[in-house]
Amino acid sequence: MLLSEIAAKLNLEFKGKDKEIRGVNTLEDAREDEISFLANPKYLSLLEKTKAGAIILNPDLSSKVETALLSSNPYLDFARTVQLFAKPQGCFSGQSDLAFIHPTAKVHPTANIYPFVFIGAEAQIGAKTTIFPGVYVGEKVKIGTDCVIYANVCLLAESKIGSKVIIHAGSVIGSDGFGFAQSQTGLEKFPQVGRVVIEDEVEIGANTTIDRAALGETRIGKGTKIDNLVQIGHNVKIGQNSILVAQVGIAGSTSIGNQVILAGQVGIAGHLTIGDGCRVAAQSGVGKDLPPKTDVGGSPAMPHKLFLRSSVIIPKLPELQKKIRYLEKKIVELEEKLEE
Amino acid sequence: MLLSEIAAKLNLEFKGKDKEIRGVNTLEDAREDEISFLANPKYLSLLEKTKAGAIILNPDLSSKVETALLSSNPYLDFARTVQLFAKPQGCFSGQSDLAFIHPTAKVHPTANIYPFVFIGAEAQIGAKTTIFPGVYVGEKVKIGTDCVIYANVCLLAESKIGSKVIIHAGSVIGSDGFGFAQSQTGLEKFPQVGRVVIEDEVEIGANTTIDRAALGETRIGKGTKIDNLVQIGHNVKIGQNSILVAQVGIAGSTSIGNQVILAGQVGIAGHLTIGDGCRVAAQSGVGKDLPPKTDVGGSPAMPHKLFLRSSVIIPKLPELQKKIRYLEKKIVELEEKLEE
Amino acid sequence: MLLSEIAAKLNLEFKGKDKEIRGVNTLEDAREDEISFLANPKYLSLLEKTKAGAIILNPDLSSKVETALLSSNPYLDFARTVQLFAKPQGCFSGQSDLAFIHPTAKVHPTANIYPFVFIGAEAQIGAKTTIFPGVYVGEKVKIGTDCVIYANVCLLAESKIGSKVIIHAGSVIGSDGFGFAQSQTGLEKFPQVGRVVIEDEVEIGANTTIDRAALGETRIGKGTKIDNLVQIGHNVKIGQNSILVAQVGIAGSTSIGNQVILAGQVGIAGHLTIGDGCRVAAQSGVGKDLPPKTDVGGSPAMPHKLFLRSSVIIPKLPELQKKIRYLEKKIVELEEKLEE
Repeated sequence: MLLSEIAAKLNLEFKGKDKEIRGVNTLEDAREDEISFLANPKYLSLLEKTKAGAIILNPDLSSKVETALLSSNPYLDFARTVQLFAKPQGCFSGQSDLAFIHPTAKVHPTANIYPFVFIGAEAQIGAKTTIFPGVYVGEKVKIGTDCVIYANVCLLAESKIGSKVIIHAGSVIGSDGFGFAQSQTGLEKFPQVGRVVIEDEVEIGANTTIDRAALGETRIGKGTKIDNLVQIGHNVKIGQNSILVAQVGIAGSTSIGNQVILAGQVGIAGHLTIGDGCRVAAQSGVGKDLPPKTDVGGSPAMPHKLFLRSSVIIPKLPELQKKIRYLEKKIVELEEKLEE
Repeated sequence: MLLSEIAAKLNLEFKGKDKEIRGVNTLEDAREDEISFLANPKYLSLLEKTKAGAIILNPDLSSKVETALLSSNPYLDFARTVQLFAKPQGCFSGQSDLAFIHPTAKVHPTANIYPFVFIGAEAQIGAKTTIFPGVYVGEKVKIGTDCVIYANVCLLAESKIGSKVIIHAGSVIGSDGFGFAQSQTGLEKFPQVGRVVIEDEVEIGANTTIDRAALGETRIGKGTKIDNLVQIGHNVKIGQNSILVAQVGIAGSTSIGNQVILAGQVGIAGHLTIGDGCRVAAQSGVGKDLPPKTDVGGSPAMPHKLFLRSSVIIPKLPELQKKIRYLEKKIVELEEKLEE
Repeated sequence: MLLSEIAAKLNLEFKGKDKEIRGVNTLEDAREDEISFLANPKYLSLLEKTKAGAIILNPDLSSKVETALLSSNPYLDFARTVQLFAKPQGCFSGQSDLAFIHPTAKVHPTANIYPFVFIGAEAQIGAKTTIFPGVYVGEKVKIGTDCVIYANVCLLAESKIGSKVIIHAGSVIGSDGFGFAQSQTGLEKFPQVGRVVIEDEVEIGANTTIDRAALGETRIGKGTKIDNLVQIGHNVKIGQNSILVAQVGIAGSTSIGNQVILAGQVGIAGHLTIGDGCRVAAQSGVGKDLPPKTDVGGSPAMPHKLFLRSSVIIPKLPELQKKIRYLEKKIVELEEKLEE
């Protein structure tokens, strides 16, 4: 693709001579026919060494390089450039004879169904959706258009998946929520008869689990991105454009707002409300509601600034304890002197 | 189903006029032909607004509603009502020609084997057990009666699964434990030649992993319920009716008693004994044995009450540090004054 | 197998009468035709009760038993003995007609391909490698010789797997990294066009996820062992013979050295360098680079000794707070007395 074409598609100003660009790469590894980017000034020194044929960078830095696309958001524009070059995975199209498609299922003729896919009764698969091998689509599941469902994903009965949704390999959508009632003889199952709804443009990582509601819905809002090995309990609601990093766990019936960021390994207790724009630091444990735009850290979580300040004191506790002992001794001494 | 029938099946007193009930729902969402419940007094105000055709609630509250089933444990009785209405998932019965069943395997004629199931040599599948697509049943695995094994579960060789066991999609039972011996050239595998035994009425969540023993058994006791993404190491023993919430991890050779509750993301170190009835708060890390009926929290774990009290002091550490500095200064001042 | 044969294969001195050994077991459970071992002096008393036909133990203890193999590393030599007796799992050989093998894939004639395996275009499978049911091998994936890929593993396009690699059931190698750029309308995908490289002799647990690089490689070094439910982000590099225990999470672009040990549920932030030989205690959270041979614990992590010392003070915080209040009061009293 010509550099001028890339500039045109991304609507960016282009500096230097036009040339053929054959791929994308980092500043370190780029060859002369590859395009790269600079978003973090920390890596400014790499501009001198890179062999990249063109660089997407901030207009302020245009004097530093010969050939550039000028962008006020180089990371975003580089992501879009990668989109131009990326080929979708896969090596199969059409609907395989080696798949099992229930006679009552409705599969759009443009959908791709790999071998060893199981599609249950009354399921619906939208146009241009691709379903990789080993995927289980339960009865009455609906999948929209332009989705990619990677290998060995399980979509349990009645789950509803929007359009332009990506679900990575091994994830389970619509497994039973964890609900039991204590009886005199043990734990009795509360059958989980609700479902999961995944809205448009959601992306779900590998081996993540999203439980169906006990009653009603578990819902993931439009544009939300979920990483690998995340656990989402029954009846959880997540808003739009939120980010859940790997190994996060959210207990049942909690509601998470829009544009929330939960960093890796965070745990959120059940029946809470986490407001729009909240950010929770890695490994934190949240046990209380958070008003919108709250930043927290720690387990149990506290305001993030306080977390940073108290964290540095934890390693000093042995020293503080010593100081307190010393002060106690001193007080006794002073009291004795005063008695005299 | 008539309300009077539900009352009879659950052995509950019934107040009001008989009517046809077509489903179950929450107080908020119930329609006039649905039954709901009130277990938590916090939601008492919803009784006025609900459209539910009947409500399961405590006899004390019977005056508040026209049509009710009176129960001393409304949550349990509602769970049982949901059991009356819930239909099992699935759309296939019999034994699919698209499954691979080893000629030496014994599959009960009433078992349901979906397409793309693999059943290895000498495996045994009990009556009325259902095995969803993509399940791998290794050689010499035994599965009892009335089990549900959801899609893409893997049961490695020689695992023994009791009766009335539910295993949700993607879980792996009987993978190798994590055992290596350090040699001069690197890490040598300690082959894991034990197995996993799952007793009756156990439920295992989605994408959970339970490792086979190095030698001997990993065992999950009767009626124990395990949530999603839980890790259970080799040679772990878990008692009866215990509850392991999502993302819990238990290291090798640890023994967990009966009716233990491990909340989400808890970690338990290896070679420990956790007594009957212990409760461990979310995200805690247990590194020592716990006597029966101990409640702990924190990482490292401490008695739960102490955890609650010390947790509220952590955010005050910067302030406490200031106070200590102030006290040190004051002591010096007082000493100087006394010198004078 | 004769005890003398075992001694010869392991190059160990053998004490007592030769006999037929039919299996391996613990000291508690061993029968007379089984061999066991003693590595931990804590279990010395079991020597008197055991029925084991022979014991691998330290030469110092040879007088305690009649029949023994004498070893300076009994755990390692017992592991090697178990290797002599262990049979590989599985009940199928050859290449199943029920597998889908793309016509452009190259599968070595000695490889075993179970039913319901999907092998994509231009994939290569080496000699004596076994691929269990439900495995997805994406296009251009390369797998070396003598590998075992257990059921329902997914190897996404272009992943490169070395030789003598073991991947346990349900793991996903080469799923997209978690990369998005913020635009004015939401989050745009940064297509993940790199790959995963797994070097020789690596073992990967069940339901673990290893993301492909955004650009370039995610790489797991030779001999490294990874447990279940571990998350490895895009562009992570791990050195040789490192150990990652269950539920560890490593964020993107972090580099982990050789012989590093990360205990269970550890989290490592992105873009860090963890030096050779570092050890991180269970549940710790590492947010900064660690120089080689550093031992840390806690979240945020601190030097391990300091972690142990400060951990015991956390439960004493309520008491320390009281002491500080008492000291404050005392200071006021002393000041008042001095005023007088």
